[in-house]
Amino acid sequence: MTADAASGPELPVNDRTRLRRMREKSRTRRSDLDAVLAAGFLCHLGVVVDGTPMVVPTVYGATADTLYVHGSVASRSLVQAPDATVCVTVTHLDGLVLARSVFEHGVNYRCAMVYATPRVVTGREDKLEGLRVLTEQCMPGQWDYARGPSRKELAATTLLAIDLAEASVKVRTGPPDDGDGPDADLDVWAGVLPVTTVWGQPVADPALRTGIALPPHVDMAAGTEVFPARSGRTP
Amino acid sequence: MTADAASGPELPVNDRTRLRRMREKSRTRRSDLDAVLAAGFLCHLGVVVDGTPMVVPTVYGATADTLYVHGSVASRSLVQAPDATVCVTVTHLDGLVLARSVFEHGVNYRCAMVYATPRVVTGREDKLEGLRVLTEQCMPGQWDYARGPSRKELAATTLLAIDLAEASVKVRTGPPDDGDGPDADLDVWAGVLPVTTVWGQPVADPALRTGIALPPHVDMAAGTEVFPARSGRTP
Repeated sequence: MTADAASGPELPVNDRTRLRRMREKSRTRRSDLDAVLAAGFLCHLGVVVDGTPMVVPTVYGATADTLYVHGSVASRSLVQAPDATVCVTVTHLDGLVLARSVFEHGVNYRCAMVYATPRVVTGREDKLEGLRVLTEQCMPGQWDYARGPSRKELAATTLLAIDLAEASVKVRTGPPDDGDGPDADLDVWAGVLPVTTVWGQPVADPALRTGIALPPHVDMAAGTEVFPARSGRTP
Repeated sequence: MTADAASGPELPVNDRTRLRRMREKSRTRRSDLDAVLAAGFLCHLGVVVDGTPMVVPTVYGATADTLYVHGSVASRSLVQAPDATVCVTVTHLDGLVLARSVFEHGVNYRCAMVYATPRVVTGREDKLEGLRVLTEQCMPGQWDYARGPSRKELAATTLLAIDLAEASVKVRTGPPDDGDGPDADLDVWAGVLPVTTVWGQPVADPALRTGIALPPHVDMAAGTEVFPARSGRTP
């Protein structure tokens, strides 16, 4: 945890965001939420469709107060989302916790759950700005590099703005918890098997015209961590 | 895609599992579902609590017909889950698709969504078997190696069995889709930045007694892929 993550404003707590289980993993600072969101670009969007939960993976971008998700205007999950509360969950897997007992096994992770009633972004400038945030979160530098959305493409895209005011954050780090109990006497190895997610080497489209160089911002990403633990926000 | 994934029984389709968007990414074989589930151990469980969706990351294990998730008996998401449909989504991120236009950007991934009304597993033997499947899915070899659950620990654990009969599978692989359109003339690099998730080197619990060797099944995992593309099922 960075010094940054231990200070700053508190996240508001209500019955939905209060952690009832495993309180030791709860992080209550607004900067903790920022850190989890800044580290990734893939979320799971939960909506209720005809009374049934539907959990859809999608990319996101986040500013100081808003998380953006997008999709086709024909998408079932996005059509359903406005006018009803959604849950957006961002999870980064950091390792497997191998304890002495099966019961104490677990996972090291960073997770944020955001609850809000999404707003459909309609204005052209607002929509472009939301898509810029989303694109830059996936690959910084790409918005200015690639061709921007045409009027038709913009019309075919639904963009939802999700307020970040209501959220909970859970983080687990470190070794298993049974090192100071009776199980510590067992002849069983205990520790953590870390998980690292990395960008590989870029694979050019076979249809790529000759003579087009890999842009520096993509080249720089290769070999680096995809979901690094860090504080602050991207773009 | 393996030969295996292209044959075998079809997944049943209904209004919930029919893919309405991006049909080219749909996989309709039962073996496709098995392959996605076998490749991972982390899912996002979607439940409806007081009319609101709640998306919780948790580990799972899967057999031929059942997916198991577990948690504390005090867990809000698990208490809510029985007697109502849940959605379990398993997503493996394989790469970022960098197209010539922002509009065609996307993600290479493997995703399974399972819908079912969970059953609470109560019998001692059934519960142990479900926990064995779950533990072995996270780390093969660990169930027989670590101390098994005591009577008290078993009572403190809620185990849900989720039928695999109703599911949809989506997979995207390969380069961006705008290589044969007008955008192919642009001076923009296009291709895929692959994402690889690997097990790192084991980190022993600082409280580990001296003289306890790393077991071979954990040692073997280090450096290998966490979510490899493969067919078939684990345990």
